[in-house]
Amino acid sequence: MTVEAVRGGVPEHGRVPKYYVVKSQLLNLLAELGEGALLPAERDLAAAYGVARSTLRQAISELTMEGRLRAYRGRGTFVAAPKLVQPLALRSYTEALREMGRNPSRRVVTVETIPAGSLAGELGVGDADEVLHLERVLLADDEQLGLESTYLPVNRFPGLMDGYDGTTSLYQHMSARYGLTYASAVERIETVLASPREAMLLGTNPAQPMLLMQRVSSDPEGRPIERVRSLYRGDRIGFETHLRA
Amino acid sequence: MTVEAVRGGVPEHGRVPKYYVVKSQLLNLLAELGEGALLPAERDLAAAYGVARSTLRQAISELTMEGRLRAYRGRGTFVAAPKLVQPLALRSYTEALREMGRNPSRRVVTVETIPAGSLAGELGVGDADEVLHLERVLLADDEQLGLESTYLPVNRFPGLMDGYDGTTSLYQHMSARYGLTYASAVERIETVLASPREAMLLGTNPAQPMLLMQRVSSDPEGRPIERVRSLYRGDRIGFETHLRA
Repeated sequence: MTVEAVRGGVPEHGRVPKYYVVKSQLLNLLAELGEGALLPAERDLAAAYGVARSTLRQAISELTMEGRLRAYRGRGTFVAAPKLVQPLALRSYTEALREMGRNPSRRVVTVETIPAGSLAGELGVGDADEVLHLERVLLADDEQLGLESTYLPVNRFPGLMDGYDGTTSLYQHMSARYGLTYASAVERIETVLASPREAMLLGTNPAQPMLLMQRVSSDPEGRPIERVRSLYRGDRIGFETHLRA
Repeated sequence: MTVEAVRGGVPEHGRVPKYYVVKSQLLNLLAELGEGALLPAERDLAAAYGVARSTLRQAISELTMEGRLRAYRGRGTFVAAPKLVQPLALRSYTEALREMGRNPSRRVVTVETIPAGSLAGELGVGDADEVLHLERVLLADDEQLGLESTYLPVNRFPGLMDGYDGTTSLYQHMSARYGLTYASAVERIETVLASPREAMLLGTNPAQPMLLMQRVSSDPEGRPIERVRSLYRGDRIGFETHLRA
């Protein structure tokens, strides 16, 4: 028995919903077809499994949300590549993606200056102090992987955006411009559902499960540098960490 | 503008689905009502917001999956407490929960011996070698938080279950019985949807987004001790890690 089989198994007293039976059958089919293969037409699959098309669609929808299938508008639904696995680390997205052999880039969505408000405590500034908000779509080989909002205290980093367009590594920019060292961070990880706006920016369906990472990074003296809110596509990426006693 | 407002905002060219407008309105209502408060009846809320009950239900369903609301059968839907935040660490679940002021316990679901199969490589054993599979529901104050499957090589740990019923810390048992030290682990984190079996064991809806943690723990010599597959309720718990340069 494999881990997959144990996971899919059903207790004696439970009834297996039809869509889940179809989902298990589709998982076997996906393994046979192999990465990149086109999924057969919905009507053919529904007929083959003897279920209504709405039942088949529920199974396909779950497999898509879990990153086993990918739909390309007008082209069909394909067996997806395995999720990317990014190290949980203080390093920049740029470095991590390059080590994975992918080409990282960013698209700037928002650059604005706002009062610190609820971020004041974490950033060690006053409520009314200004905070620079830089929001960017994280891309890997032109594929949207995540949406990142970084909040930095304006007083501490005057002229931060001068000569910086936001499409390259902020870490490298901060280091070059202010001689800044990122020494530590506290990061919180949870799962949330994509809002319609996030789904649009990332090319997913609304309510797609996402990994939300919220981080406060500090310099060697323990002073907060930034607060970062990164939302990663749950269907495209996971994270890996090395733990020690 | 707060982080929440930025996240909920919608780009100029986007249309906001009705259910999401209602979800935002409900989030404000939840903040007013406060933790533990009973949500008003569906028909009253639908009337107040001027939407169909199916639209209201979609908003409530998302808020429930995200852990903002909790439904208790026959009692109604309540404003949920914030998610638990567990440290990402090599320590046991027991220690982590106690530090959070919660009472940890476990309910054994499966104890079986199976061929290593696909786990052989990670556990450093042969395909046909036997592996002990211990599957347990993780509880915090009698609330189901997660489902954990641990796989251990039988040859290396003979008589592992002798005098151990699986309801207490496996780490403490392994340490006491074999003088074993857990020195390091590689852990992978992603989001998946609960299967019907998992949903039943954890008291959630099927397709509830979950945090899946897959870990291989090793001893000081780097020999693998166990493979662990932990599925945590995405609506009830998040994780926190401290990163250093």
